[in-house]
Amino acid sequence: MTAQPALTHHTFIQPIPTLRREGDSVLVLDQTLLPFRTETRTLHTLADAAHAIRSMQVRGAPLIGATAAYGVALALLHEGSEDAALARALQVLGATRPTAVNLHWALARMERRLRPLPRAERLDAAWTEAEAIRTDDAATCDAIGRHGLAIIEAIAARRPGPVRLMTHCNAGWLATCGAGTALAPIYAAQAAGIAVEVFVSETRPRNQGLLTEWELRAADVPHTLIADNAAGLLLMQGEVDMVITGADRIAANGDTANKVGTYLKALAAQAAGVPFYIAAPHSTLDFACPDGRAIPIEDRGADEVCLLRGLADNGTLAEVRLAPTGTRVANPAFDITPAALISGIITERGITAAGELATLYPEAAR
Amino acid sequence: MTAQPALTHHTFIQPIPTLRREGDSVLVLDQTLLPFRTETRTLHTLADAAHAIRSMQVRGAPLIGATAAYGVALALLHEGSEDAALARALQVLGATRPTAVNLHWALARMERRLRPLPRAERLDAAWTEAEAIRTDDAATCDAIGRHGLAIIEAIAARRPGPVRLMTHCNAGWLATCGAGTALAPIYAAQAAGIAVEVFVSETRPRNQGLLTEWELRAADVPHTLIADNAAGLLLMQGEVDMVITGADRIAANGDTANKVGTYLKALAAQAAGVPFYIAAPHSTLDFACPDGRAIPIEDRGADEVCLLRGLADNGTLAEVRLAPTGTRVANPAFDITPAALISGIITERGITAAGELATLYPEAAR
Repeated sequence: MTAQPALTHHTFIQPIPTLRREGDSVLVLDQTLLPFRTETRTLHTLADAAHAIRSMQVRGAPLIGATAAYGVALALLHEGSEDAALARALQVLGATRPTAVNLHWALARMERRLRPLPRAERLDAAWTEAEAIRTDDAATCDAIGRHGLAIIEAIAARRPGPVRLMTHCNAGWLATCGAGTALAPIYAAQAAGIAVEVFVSETRPRNQGLLTEWELRAADVPHTLIADNAAGLLLMQGEVDMVITGADRIAANGDTANKVGTYLKALAAQAAGVPFYIAAPHSTLDFACPDGRAIPIEDRGADEVCLLRGLADNGTLAEVRLAPTGTRVANPAFDITPAALISGIITERGITAAGELATLYPEAAR
Repeated sequence: MTAQPALTHHTFIQPIPTLRREGDSVLVLDQTLLPFRTETRTLHTLADAAHAIRSMQVRGAPLIGATAAYGVALALLHEGSEDAALARALQVLGATRPTAVNLHWALARMERRLRPLPRAERLDAAWTEAEAIRTDDAATCDAIGRHGLAIIEAIAARRPGPVRLMTHCNAGWLATCGAGTALAPIYAAQAAGIAVEVFVSETRPRNQGLLTEWELRAADVPHTLIADNAAGLLLMQGEVDMVITGADRIAANGDTANKVGTYLKALAAQAAGVPFYIAAPHSTLDFACPDGRAIPIEDRGADEVCLLRGLADNGTLAEVRLAPTGTRVANPAFDITPAALISGIITERGITAAGELATLYPEAAR
């Protein structure tokens, strides 16, 4: 565990809220249309919330958790506050996506808060608790940013020129209710006046790297888009000082599930002697999961690989087909990076070796 | 060097010729439109041939070499057979693409054949030599198929069920004048009645995996398309018996340049204890290049990453934009797989450890 420096506080304000309550509904930024269209969806019901998570209108492990919490409130609002309604909401939301554990963490927190209450108090408490999950996540992101900043500062002190980072998928503000996880230290570095450059991996098949490109462009952070395949050569050639990604579930031994392709970057980082960091909140830790083999990996449909959305010449959103209908496709959404490839895990409590998470979270590891 | 089994000869016939002479012109299958459109381009001039290579209408290291050889004949036909015209043709064609060494091998072979001849004999000799390069390549592919088949047979003998291979990019018949390089052993296995299944990696940014998907579908070889990012998990999970790819240039020490992303698969294969083979003809060997660091890596434009072609709903070819014009992109077309990650190199003369190529090609290594 790295000693924590004295940290100045930096609060990140999302340029567009990824999630917010409005009266009896919840507004979410529809990320399936990004970076091409900035549209908001209104979630009225449990089914709306479940659909938003399953269809990846909201995505990113922390944001999925918060959306599920609000989904519980929507369920109680329309389906009553009886135990059965609560149980059904937890079941429906818990079944939306299998890999990210923040979803289950948020639902367990909601259940712990609501189950002991009289039925008449549950709805108000659900809104309040969901709101607390949202604001806690924002504070957590800020803390991850401050801890990760120390690593970037150390690299900046060692060599001239901008610190060159590589990331995968999108673990920025779009993936959370705050600054992000993997991108939070980058935004913190920018705020601290440290020059950074970011290699942004496209992240096929869903191309969430384009979300990262959009985020960094909007924030004026210098960055370079690459095909996922290019990561190995760039690392081998010494073009990268540090790799940092988010996580969807971290097992007790530090093995980490994250967006498919993360493992390949970790292998190439190790081969090149480049540090590879995971940035994630406590809600991503799953001490009940002994190691990576116990983490379920979500298989998604063939269309994610065979169909692709972009902008047509006339500026409209268009979808093109890359491979024929009926093509057999394997589409695991996540992979497992073994703890041995991870230089450190950055959480809101500090930075630790992947195998020593329990030292940061003794109460959860018990 | 593996002992060579008694081999039965299998001659592969290309379903559509990738390259053929027709009178005073050369017909090539336009691979920029595949797998969506099957169209042939007619090359009349040196400029046509250079454009076909540069724009990747023809692609695949062996096919690039053969096309360049025919390009010399087209140059002599229209620009005369003087030394200056020959030199110019060699220079123009040699500058089309920097990484694949087969291009330079074929041009050197043409120069060796033509330069000593009287000018009046050069044109006929150019056509004849180009034709010899084409038919030699087909025979070379068949031999690579027979040698590689022995590896697949050995895996099939060890475990029940189909042999599960993974490949990258397209090193099939489309990339050559014959059966292909990496796919030749797969076609040979199919002809020998051995069940195989092939994981086909999309191969961003140019998606040559879709060419492989198209080839294997046409040949009734069972296969599964994957995003490049999925290769690590599948290897880790024990879903793959063998990885096999082609090559664009192999240095004297066995370090191999191939389509970007190959190195990541080699790292993941090594981590999983899965053999990783390179299949390539002698024309891919570059003994003048001591190791991978000496191989030039082609950087291609941003549009290959930011624009993508597919089929629109109405069946027409359409291009969509993924990232805004002006996005900074790094787009290396190849990467280097160190010899230490390569289980063996399959050539037309047999199979050898990557570091022992000189034992198969003593005359070239001198």
